[in-house]
Amino acid sequence: MQTSVSPHRALRSTGRILMGPGPSMVHPRVYEALSRKLDGHLDPEFLTIMNETQEMLREVFATKNRLTISISGTGSAGMEAALVNLIEPDDDVLVCVNGVFGARMCDITERLGGKLHRIECPWGEVFRVEEIEDALKKSPGVKVVAIVNAETSTGAHQPIAEIGRLCRETGRLLVVDAVTSLGGTELSVDDWNIDVCYSGTQKCLSCPPGLAPITLNDRALARLHARKRKVSSWYLDMSLIESYWTDGKRAYHHTAPISMNYALHQALAVVLEEGLKPRFERHRRNSLALVKGLEALGFRLFAAQGHRLPMLNAVWIPEGVDDAKTRRQLLDQFNIEIGGGLGQVAGKIWRIGLMGETSTRENVTWFLSALESILYSQGRLKQIGAGLEAVVQAYAT
Amino acid sequence: MQTSVSPHRALRSTGRILMGPGPSMVHPRVYEALSRKLDGHLDPEFLTIMNETQEMLREVFATKNRLTISISGTGSAGMEAALVNLIEPDDDVLVCVNGVFGARMCDITERLGGKLHRIECPWGEVFRVEEIEDALKKSPGVKVVAIVNAETSTGAHQPIAEIGRLCRETGRLLVVDAVTSLGGTELSVDDWNIDVCYSGTQKCLSCPPGLAPITLNDRALARLHARKRKVSSWYLDMSLIESYWTDGKRAYHHTAPISMNYALHQALAVVLEEGLKPRFERHRRNSLALVKGLEALGFRLFAAQGHRLPMLNAVWIPEGVDDAKTRRQLLDQFNIEIGGGLGQVAGKIWRIGLMGETSTRENVTWFLSALESILYSQGRLKQIGAGLEAVVQAYAT
Repeated sequence: MQTSVSPHRALRSTGRILMGPGPSMVHPRVYEALSRKLDGHLDPEFLTIMNETQEMLREVFATKNRLTISISGTGSAGMEAALVNLIEPDDDVLVCVNGVFGARMCDITERLGGKLHRIECPWGEVFRVEEIEDALKKSPGVKVVAIVNAETSTGAHQPIAEIGRLCRETGRLLVVDAVTSLGGTELSVDDWNIDVCYSGTQKCLSCPPGLAPITLNDRALARLHARKRKVSSWYLDMSLIESYWTDGKRAYHHTAPISMNYALHQALAVVLEEGLKPRFERHRRNSLALVKGLEALGFRLFAAQGHRLPMLNAVWIPEGVDDAKTRRQLLDQFNIEIGGGLGQVAGKIWRIGLMGETSTRENVTWFLSALESILYSQGRLKQIGAGLEAVVQAYAT
Repeated sequence: MQTSVSPHRALRSTGRILMGPGPSMVHPRVYEALSRKLDGHLDPEFLTIMNETQEMLREVFATKNRLTISISGTGSAGMEAALVNLIEPDDDVLVCVNGVFGARMCDITERLGGKLHRIECPWGEVFRVEEIEDALKKSPGVKVVAIVNAETSTGAHQPIAEIGRLCRETGRLLVVDAVTSLGGTELSVDDWNIDVCYSGTQKCLSCPPGLAPITLNDRALARLHARKRKVSSWYLDMSLIESYWTDGKRAYHHTAPISMNYALHQALAVVLEEGLKPRFERHRRNSLALVKGLEALGFRLFAAQGHRLPMLNAVWIPEGVDDAKTRRQLLDQFNIEIGGGLGQVAGKIWRIGLMGETSTRENVTWFLSALESILYSQGRLKQIGAGLEAVVQAYAT
């Protein structure tokens, strides 16, 4: 047995201004919840918290779905949970890809033995309902359609309502990735006919990463309960998780991540106390100001006009600007994190997040003043202040 | 969209004396870590914390395995990760079952399409190496052997070293569940020839639930990298997770649960500052005192003599004592949680945990004084004090 004393004992962390694609900044009440002394996962106090969390999640998802809970893993576990419960081997699945997260859904579908029908549109753009309709005509056996509402890799905002209507009318189940949109822009699970919708805690809910809110309606559950073979993942099998979260018996499945559930409870409380509509408006307004400032500095937005997410602003990195160096300067000189590009746009775009608690006038201002300072120091701006001025004007109107 | 104001805003929790089968009590340093302001999951500060966590986990697992990390899910996700990476459809797998968690391994094996060879011994007892040897002779095609080191459902302590030697000599991979044992009693991954070992954070590491420490050696990785088909779980695919945790490139896989990783870092620091050997001795000593006290009250231990876990003490509930009522009295009158039985021993045994920070003389004393008080009030004890006296004597020797 090794008994040497490790030199690593202290926890070093900085506490950044988190303006990347998540995690976002966290409300003090949520940090307080995280540091609460634990009760057990079958304690009556904790079961009450689970019940209240379900009620609050239903409000945020805009759904009446009974099974509206959090998966004990990150947003990607939510994606996997959505697909693994619906897809059996040889099921035809249509996946719409316009970024990294659509591609990830394809990967998961294939691992599950699903027959993948993949349609693509350029990164930064969104699908028209006619494209989905055509694809379904070509592949009439498709049972499940999967699409991303908010593509975190591009900043594109995919409309869902018409696609939901199409899927409902033609008898397909619709799975929607709302990891980045939930709590930051309108999402109406029931009105939009979404059958399964999942998210993550670390975006517009402003809770640390670690849980994946998910909701399944009765159509999705009927399919789950009619499966020929068991769900290939025991950990994510919603028929087992359902018993722990919603049955009177509260049958033990796995030990819930108690502290993270405390945090989610308070994060949802903060969201609902602000109110969803004011919260969406705040996201919209701060994003518009940021975009005005960036455009005044000569930046071009990556996602298509009219289909841009307010919480994730993707811009082309100007010719000649060093991606890694500039982001490192933001981090080291100004304590600000922004995100680089993923996949085919790695090194080509930046992703500037204004999610949840991060979405404030001061963060927009601080980021632009930091960016202007760096670009000016690099000799890429002749004068300083144009970005900030545009921001001031944006808030004045 | 629903915009009604939810009445549930305050977080109500009690902070119990956690003497169940996990979660255990948590050190204040770990709660402080949980409430740290976040850095991002690709922040240089956070990558350092991941590196340090790996080093500390290696010490605790007593291994040199490069890939020694935490899975972003609870202990059960660790179990699933261990099996899903090693097992391909039609692989022969031997699973040893003497409780709930061995049975869970069977369930997962079958979901993965593995050919299950299941051997059993009575709950509360352990396997002799000869039984494994016989089973392997009957099923020479077995490639993976899975066994539980510390059966949380029974309190039985399964010896591993000889089984490890057998598996190594006969070319099988050995998967060991150390969810409840890690950090509380000797576990020597390398010396015992364990190929994959996983645990949970909420037992003897005294960190809240939410992560699953896991270690894979080169034999296990060779099997993973030689798979014919992809791992069926994208989220738990160790070939992808490996890149994020150990490659120089730190390729993004999923967003790490940052706060929980902070907590694990400090929990491991607390473990290593105490030292593994003193920590194991503390667990042993407090368990012995508890057992003496329980026996003085007429309780019989559930697990076989000589094979009892120091951190999980299972006792038969005496004839006529109401299981649920008595546990509820412990909770309501004394703020103490203990565990009931699972599966075939539900309603028949109690599981009294002395894990990590919970394993103290004061908790042993408080629990016995509470239990004596309740049994006396219920008219089941003629006099009070016999349990406490036995405990005092146990600590005096």
